[in-house]
Amino acid sequence: MTTIELPLTERPDDQAVAGCCAPAAGDVVDTGTARDLARQFKALADPTRVQLLSIVTAHEGHEACVCDLTEPVGLSQPTVSHHLKILVEAGLLEREQRGRWAYYRAVPGAVAGLADAVSTLTPSPATASA
Amino acid sequence: MTTIELPLTERPDDQAVAGCCAPAAGDVVDTGTARDLARQFKALADPTRVQLLSIVTAHEGHEACVCDLTEPVGLSQPTVSHHLKILVEAGLLEREQRGRWAYYRAVPGAVAGLADAVSTLTPSPATASA
Repeated sequence: MTTIELPLTERPDDQAVAGCCAPAAGDVVDTGTARDLARQFKALADPTRVQLLSIVTAHEGHEACVCDLTEPVGLSQPTVSHHLKILVEAGLLEREQRGRWAYYRAVPGAVAGLADAVSTLTPSPATASA
Repeated sequence: MTTIELPLTERPDDQAVAGCCAPAAGDVVDTGTARDLARQFKALADPTRVQLLSIVTAHEGHEACVCDLTEPVGLSQPTVSHHLKILVEAGLLEREQRGRWAYYRAVPGAVAGLADAVSTLTPSPATASA
């Protein structure tokens, strides 16, 4: 009996494999950037924290007393303080104690930087196929 | 013995409470928007998923075969498929089966919408204090 050996690279399946892989056309975020972004996205992966960040940045001077933040989100001060701590740890807010109240301020450039980063994940017309 | 009742609203502590609360100057995201945003942020709260979204959007036509995605992130195809499924469920990617391969495409407008939403969380000069 005669055995015919077919070169593996000519199998239809392998052609399909070879044909499937188009090169990337635009910039891809590196591992370190992806890790930093994921950390900030994780801090915002909760509706209350999205609202709290929104309320703080909407306030005059982009800062708010913790006493301003409990009523809008309908939660107790310890719970609100817990959420705010996560936003501080993610570098999105900074905290300052003034007398009996803690004040939270949007970190200049931090949220803007996140917005820019999300924009880099957005499909641009330049990388669209014809 | 005579008991003097002091009106609660005139206690120094309550004055401090009243004095602490500055009004919000800008727009605040509503509960429904906060919930939708948090869902998408949660999908991106992982470095691998940030990278996968970045790779897909950087590809020509903003789409990539799953076979293109395993090597850049250094993970097995089942693991990559799991991450991609989370991005699909968050409405950021859509999946199409073509023969033996699944292709993932950036949902038009979805990531751009997320970038716009993050921008609304960004402190703007208009709401800065003098």
